Amino acid sequence: MSATGDRETPWDVVGSVGVIGAHTLTFEDVALASGEVLSQVVVEYETLGTMSPERDNVVLLCHALSGDAHVAGWRESDARAAGWSPEDGPRWSPPAPATGDPDAAPSSAVRPGWWDPMVGPGKTFDTERYFIVCANVLGGCSGTTGPSSINPASGEPFGLDFPVVTIEDMVDVQARLLDELGIERLLAVAGGSMGGMQALAWAKRYPERVGACIAIATTWRLGAQAIAFNEVGRAAILGDPAFAGGRYYETGATPRHGLAVARMIGHITYLSDESMHEKFGRRLRGRDEFAFRFVTEFEVESYLAYQGKRFTERFDANTYLYMTKAMDYFDLCGDAGSLADVFRGSPVRFLVISFSSDWLFPTYQSKEIVAALSAAGAEVSFAEIRSPYGHDAFLLEPAAQHAFIEPFLAQARVAGRAGARPTKGGELE
Amino acid sequence: MSATGDRETPWDVVGSVGVIGAHTLTFEDVALASGEVLSQVVVEYETLGTMSPERDNVVLLCHALSGDAHVAGWRESDARAAGWSPEDGPRWSPPAPATGDPDAAPSSAVRPGWWDPMVGPGKTFDTERYFIVCANVLGGCSGTTGPSSINPASGEPFGLDFPVVTIEDMVDVQARLLDELGIERLLAVAGGSMGGMQALAWAKRYPERVGACIAIATTWRLGAQAIAFNEVGRAAILGDPAFAGGRYYETGATPRHGLAVARMIGHITYLSDESMHEKFGRRLRGRDEFAFRFVTEFEVESYLAYQGKRFTERFDANTYLYMTKAMDYFDLCGDAGSLADVFRGSPVRFLVISFSSDWLFPTYQSKEIVAALSAAGAEVSFAEIRSPYGHDAFLLEPAAQHAFIEPFLAQARVAGRAGARPTKGGELE
Repeated sequence: MSATGDRETPWDVVGSVGVIGAHTLTFEDVALASGEVLSQVVVEYETLGTMSPERDNVVLLCHALSGDAHVAGWRESDARAAGWSPEDGPRWSPPAPATGDPDAAPSSAVRPGWWDPMVGPGKTFDTERYFIVCANVLGGCSGTTGPSSINPASGEPFGLDFPVVTIEDMVDVQARLLDELGIERLLAVAGGSMGGMQALAWAKRYPERVGACIAIATTWRLGAQAIAFNEVGRAAILGDPAFAGGRYYETGATPRHGLAVARMIGHITYLSDESMHEKFGRRLRGRDEFAFRFVTEFEVESYLAYQGKRFTERFDANTYLYMTKAMDYFDLCGDAGSLADVFRGSPVRFLVISFSSDWLFPTYQSKEIVAALSAAGAEVSFAEIRSPYGHDAFLLEPAAQHAFIEPFLAQARVAGRAGARPTKGGELE
Repeated sequence: MSATGDRETPWDVVGSVGVIGAHTLTFEDVALASGEVLSQVVVEYETLGTMSPERDNVVLLCHALSGDAHVAGWRESDARAAGWSPEDGPRWSPPAPATGDPDAAPSSAVRPGWWDPMVGPGKTFDTERYFIVCANVLGGCSGTTGPSSINPASGEPFGLDFPVVTIEDMVDVQARLLDELGIERLLAVAGGSMGGMQALAWAKRYPERVGACIAIATTWRLGAQAIAFNEVGRAAILGDPAFAGGRYYETGATPRHGLAVARMIGHITYLSDESMHEKFGRRLRGRDEFAFRFVTEFEVESYLAYQGKRFTERFDANTYLYMTKAMDYFDLCGDAGSLADVFRGSPVRFLVISFSSDWLFPTYQSKEIVAALSAAGAEVSFAEIRSPYGHDAFLLEPAAQHAFIEPFLAQARVAGRAGARPTKGGELE
């Protein structure tokens, strides 16, 4: 099967989900891959749309390294700060910024959720058709228990006493969240980058609970180069004197410098050579000639410095360590003889999407997944989307992704209602 | 012209240049592109082989970011420390290390010069045929005046008071060095990476003094991605508290951490995804299972940590800043309307070599140089060498480079002796 769709979807006219409230649930004990057990695990999540009476329209969206549960619309707290009140109703939109330059917006500006162009009424993950669930991952720093949370055993933040978690641990916590919400089965699980790893891990661990798996801009295991980039980011954080062995919460200082460097490295890997050159070239910022001093001169330097600084205002350095470690450990094959063995006889339908200029998780790695799924007899669709935006394309190319995801989801729902499962040949029974 | 050659050269039997002594020269005043003037500039250089009576066999080799004047053989001081004495003669080789694992060798082990596989008797830059000159660049930290040198005006190390230098400044100092050595004209100038930029700048600034230019794994200007990687490295150094505004020489501490992170980033860009995966894969070092702690686990982490640490033992953090800035500023086109305009009517013969897996200075950038030279009517040969080793291939692929460089050099010498110059059409007169 090769999905097609309308690439001309008018993205500016489809609706916003408006103001969103976050929820939390607490789990008494969570057993981890490391053998450790976490107690009193809080999970923050958001839901959008309405669950069907048959509970057959639930889509779990999984976020990437720096994401959170806030997938679309505006957080209630942010909206209130920007002047919203409940009388305005949920379909509020914030006032437009005074300037079109996002760099000029103050960092406290109200921003919509991380996948807002993809999630909302009439959008790809259509909140008028699907019930969307998104939770901050285990180890995160945005409402779910992580290294910045209070360790019940000590009464102080965990820091590096927090156990190292895996992608599978994240998925297991999500499964327990769904149990609590009374959701037995997902229509689909979807995500990009680290979110795509979670989607794939869902299909592996809970094949009977997943109708469809949408894995975008992701991989089944990191190669040496991707591990190397993660390790340099960690080295920048761990070596920052303000890191203080991870106990910086008590010091009043944070390892801002190390975290900013880590984020700058990350940003280079999220963009492509082509898109960076198109966006910044060799242009100087605010000057015509070289300064012959060590100041920010090139536009690209200014962009990276801004991204690094902004990140330190919202993200915890310890969580950065834990997220990158979880990705490094991720190996979908695990102890199986081959990746195909993992998915032999899988009832899950797969859609794998890569981007032509993504050099962090290049297309060949997606093709390895597709080849393994095909060899396993699983139903799989694959699209490589031509885009100059590199790895970040999963955030920046809503229309192109819509063309493949929208019909795939619709088809999965029809198949789910009919109770049909793809046979090994890939045809519906 | 498309050069060919013997790729089966037996690299293990060609000779070493043996023990080498370094020399220095001092220049009273050096005017820089920035408008500043440096006084008392010391230049450290080495020479190998014998100058011909006609002085027509001089080849200038230009080093890359972390290189120095020591291009081949063993430094006399290192050799003495390893037990060599003058009675042993210059054709000494150090005792073999106890183990074949270079990581196991102590960092004080005697190592040959940075391009030893390419330079020596019977090698590509054959010291029995050519007189080789190699000098540490201006701004360096290996004998030539740089930010770690004493500022005559203050009696203390320059630090960031050292003026920002350009690739063209480096080349101008090399030209004055050749003046002092009585060398009016070079048979060839050659280098890889930043050394290739110098070679190209030589051809632009001193076309009448250069017979041939060999530019390897290099570019005519850095793109936004390469500037970005340099900037993150600089950010790591500048933000290290031990950097102390560049005045760390007096503190007893050095910004080891920042410099190591910068070097780790650099190393990732010097290798290819393919070669990293081949060399390290996802193998763990000294363990079978994940540690679930933030320790060095993967082989690739161990490699990067080792490279970062070793670099801090031999390289000055300020010089790292100045070298990367010089590269960022480098733009061979400059104020000319096009790169072709720069070389119109150039009498220099060019050989441009790129490597298929070099993603720091990709082949397309070399092709841009070649296209401009062709459009300018200059004599140019081009080879893209298939190699998995990424940017570092200019250090790791001696045989493949030999196949193109050896005949190119021989031909340049014949042409030089005949006094022939290529016409605009590219044919010899």
